[in-house]
Formats: sequence, C-alpha cells, structure tokens
Amino acid sequence: MIVIKIGGGEGINHQAVFQNLARLIAAGTRAIVVHGANHEMKELCKRLDLPQRMITSVSGYESRYTDAATMDAFMMAYCGKVNTSLTALARACGVNAIGMSGVDGGLLSATRKKAIRAVEDGKTILIRDDYSGKIETVNDGLLRTLTDAGFVPLISPPALSEAFEPVNVDGDRAAAEMAAAVGAKRLIILSNVPGLLRDVADESSLIRLIERSNVEAFEEFAKGRMRKKVMGAVEAIDKGVDEVVFADARIASPIDAALNGQGTVIRP
Amino acid sequence: MIVIKIGGGEGINHQAVFQNLARLIAAGTRAIVVHGANHEMKELCKRLDLPQRMITSVSGYESRYTDAATMDAFMMAYCGKVNTSLTALARACGVNAIGMSGVDGGLLSATRKKAIRAVEDGKTILIRDDYSGKIETVNDGLLRTLTDAGFVPLISPPALSEAFEPVNVDGDRAAAEMAAAVGAKRLIILSNVPGLLRDVADESSLIRLIERSNVEAFEEFAKGRMRKKVMGAVEAIDKGVDEVVFADARIASPIDAALNGQGTVIRP
Repeated sequence: MIVIKIGGGEGINHQAVFQNLARLIAAGTRAIVVHGANHEMKELCKRLDLPQRMITSVSGYESRYTDAATMDAFMMAYCGKVNTSLTALARACGVNAIGMSGVDGGLLSATRKKAIRAVEDGKTILIRDDYSGKIETVNDGLLRTLTDAGFVPLISPPALSEAFEPVNVDGDRAAAEMAAAVGAKRLIILSNVPGLLRDVADESSLIRLIERSNVEAFEEFAKGRMRKKVMGAVEAIDKGVDEVVFADARIASPIDAALNGQGTVIRP
Repeated sequence: MIVIKIGGGEGINHQAVFQNLARLIAAGTRAIVVHGANHEMKELCKRLDLPQRMITSVSGYESRYTDAATMDAFMMAYCGKVNTSLTALARACGVNAIGMSGVDGGLLSATRKKAIRAVEDGKTILIRDDYSGKIETVNDGLLRTLTDAGFVPLISPPALSEAFEPVNVDGDRAAAEMAAAVGAKRLIILSNVPGLLRDVADESSLIRLIERSNVEAFEEFAKGRMRKKVMGAVEAIDKGVDEVVFADARIASPIDAALNGQGTVIRP
C-alpha cells in the first residue's frame, strides 16, 4: 500500500499523477490519495470577500485561521469543488476513485483545539473561535473496506471533532496518520517543488536524503508549509512507514519518479 | 432497505430526521439517504454574484440552468457545504453516515444532455452549454459494500457523465433510481410540505393516496419541483419499489410518520 498526498498549490499536473497511479494500480499496487486545495481556497475566499488570516503558533508553525465562516468556505473549496473535480479527473484517467473527507464514515476523528496560542505582531494572543484540530484516530477499517472492494479513496480534510464539528487538519499530517494506520510502506508527498531545498530560490539545491535521526539538521531549510511536511514525514517514520518522499508533481510520471528516489527521501 | 430523500428547501428539521433514522437503524433497518441543497445553492449563487436561471423544458419540467460556473457552485453547495455538514450532523445523531456524491466510486453514471429544448418567453430555444444529465446506471455494488459494512450512504448530486464531467441530476429521480437498484421496499421523499396538495396554499388539501394506474388524474396538482417528485415516484414504482411516500420533514419523527402513511402515499 502506498499513500500519496497531492499538494493544493498551483502548477500540479493532476492528470500526470492520476495516469501514473492508474498504471501502478493495474500492476497491482494499492493506494490511498490525500489532497489539498489551498489555491482554490484562496480563490474562493477572494470571491466571497472573506478575509484570510494566517496564524503562527508559538512553536513557529503557520496555519490558516479557520473561524465558522472560513470553515464553510473550506468545505466548499476542499470537499465540494476540488474533491469532486479530482475524483472525476481520476476516474477519467482510469483510477476507481471514491472521493471523501475525513468527516465521512468517521474516517478522521480529531480533538478540536480549545485555544491556540499564536504570535501576532510580536505579541502572544489566544484564539478561541478557531475550528482546527489534531487527528486522534483513523478509521482504518473503512479504508480497508474500500481498498478491498477495489476503490481508491481520494481524501480531503476536514476531520470531525469529538463534538461532531468539522475541523481543519493539515493534509500532510493527515496523510502521515493514514499511512501509519494502514501500514503503508511508502508515503509520497507531491507538491509544486522538487522537494526540500536548501535555498528555496534554487531548485538545484535539493536535499536528497534525510535520516530520521538527523532531521534536526535540516529543519532550518523547512520554511512555511514545508515545516508541516517535515513534521508529517517524521510522524510517519516514527509510526512505522519505511520511506517518505517529497517530490515534484509538475512533471510527467511524478509517482514513478518519487518511487525512484527523485526528490527528498526521508528514512528511519 | 429504505431510501430517504431529504429536500433542500428551507425549514427541514434535519436533526429530527437523523434522530429518527438512528432509532430505525438500531432496530435493524438499513437505509440510504439522498439530499438536496437548493436553498444553500441559491444563497451561494447570491454571494458569488452568479445569476440563476431556471429553464422549462418543452414538456413543462423546470430545472436549473447549469453552465460550467454554476456547476462549480453546485459542487461547492451540494457536495461541499451541505453534504459535509449533514454528514457531521447525522453522525452527531448516531447515524454512521458516509457522505458522497454520485461522482464517487462511479455511484451514478449519466449521459449528459447534448442539447435541451427549452421554452423561454413563449419561444423554443436550444441550450447546449448545460451540464445536466440523465442517470443511466447506479453502482449498486458500492451501496451494498457500504451498507454491508454498517454505513449509511448520504448522497448528493451531481452524477458523472460518459465524458467524466460532473452533471446535475434531479435528487428525487436519483433517489428513485437508487431505490430501484438496491431493491428497496420503500422510498420516502421528505420536504417542507406535508405531501402533494390539491391547493398549494392549503395544507389540509393533502392527497392521501395515489395509485400508479391513476397518477394522471393527480398531475394537475403537481406544480414546479413537485412535478419531478411525482415523476421520480412513478419511476420508482415502475421499477419495483412497493411504496413511495411524500412526507413532511418539518415535524418530529418525520420518518415514522411517513412509514405510518402520513403524507401522500403512491402505490402500484
């Protein structure tokens, strides 16, 4: 079983990803796909005149401030537009995709963060109306039921909180949790960059291999959203996944390339 | 197996529907739920400044004109906001719901209407950029896989066309097709009216029983969206469903009431 996370940024070649996936499935691979929708979310918020605000936690992680109105837009962009469109495209490419969110069938259960300590203009503030959560359990039985029946689950955040509220969870970390829950050997995190770069302005500065024991030495290079990808990779490795690859989804056969080690490989 | 369609109008008591459903499931009933989202769709189109246009076919059926931009909003309102929120609410009420659309897992395959002959201002016009379709097949195997595993599929349009485009299909007729495909005994169509009324302004003018052989005598009372409900009911009966009930979803225990014959009952 492999788990593939497709980033939600611009420039992703979704058709190449799904055509590649169809070939792997025809050859006997089982797969679960997780996707983001950050670009579509930004576009929708602009159209809805909904101000977007990023918050930085005291430990330095950046995330989207998700109040109730933003969560509505989140469900529309992620579950509505992107999940449905990607499911249609995957099916057009020969992948027997079944789109779903973490809310469906109890797939991703989370605890909502009661209060987030964030840093804004150098001050620590407490945010209480944010709908974000931490994944606690994965319904791996549901994933097995679907993959046993020949489907490829195509999964989007949000997760469902203990009070049955949809809550924003990071897609990379959700993919890591699911990879661990189903005992996947590999987690491939595709985005619109070739992997973790020493210098974000220079794609040739790709870091080829990170060993888990040495991950701290590379954290300085992980900026912005890449920090959560590194966190997700570490979580996946610590929970038994053999290999995580950060790889480029703008190229032909992006999954084959990742499986061949093209990108940043993280190993135990 | 029962199939329940929940209308997308205002005033539906979703909590009462799902609490009632949870009791029936605890007592051994298996169910599939289909929902609309017409009210949310209207609200979203207003916010997006997307003009809404209804078209009337030459045979007198009204439907939503769904060009590409409207289909994007449709996926956001139906699959994103409403399907995800209703799945969360159903789970809060103890129903093991799994939200999905007709696109997911090949659930609803449709042929896209190449051109719609519509009547506008007394003239017949041809509409070619509409994404609407007619359901051709239901993946009943997927529904059985999910219900066998203890899930309640909670289903929204669109369907997927032969060219893998999401297409608008009527929710009542989709529910009828699925009821027939899984061999359901009963199809309950819940909305914000008590059933088919002789006089839409008078809720006491409820028609209590319609026999299939005599349906033409009642068609004059079916106005607007109610026409498609009658069409769906006839299709379901003709394909072997024992009983269709149009019933009120604004009351307590709406499913029990419908099963007790409160509403408009349609029989072979």
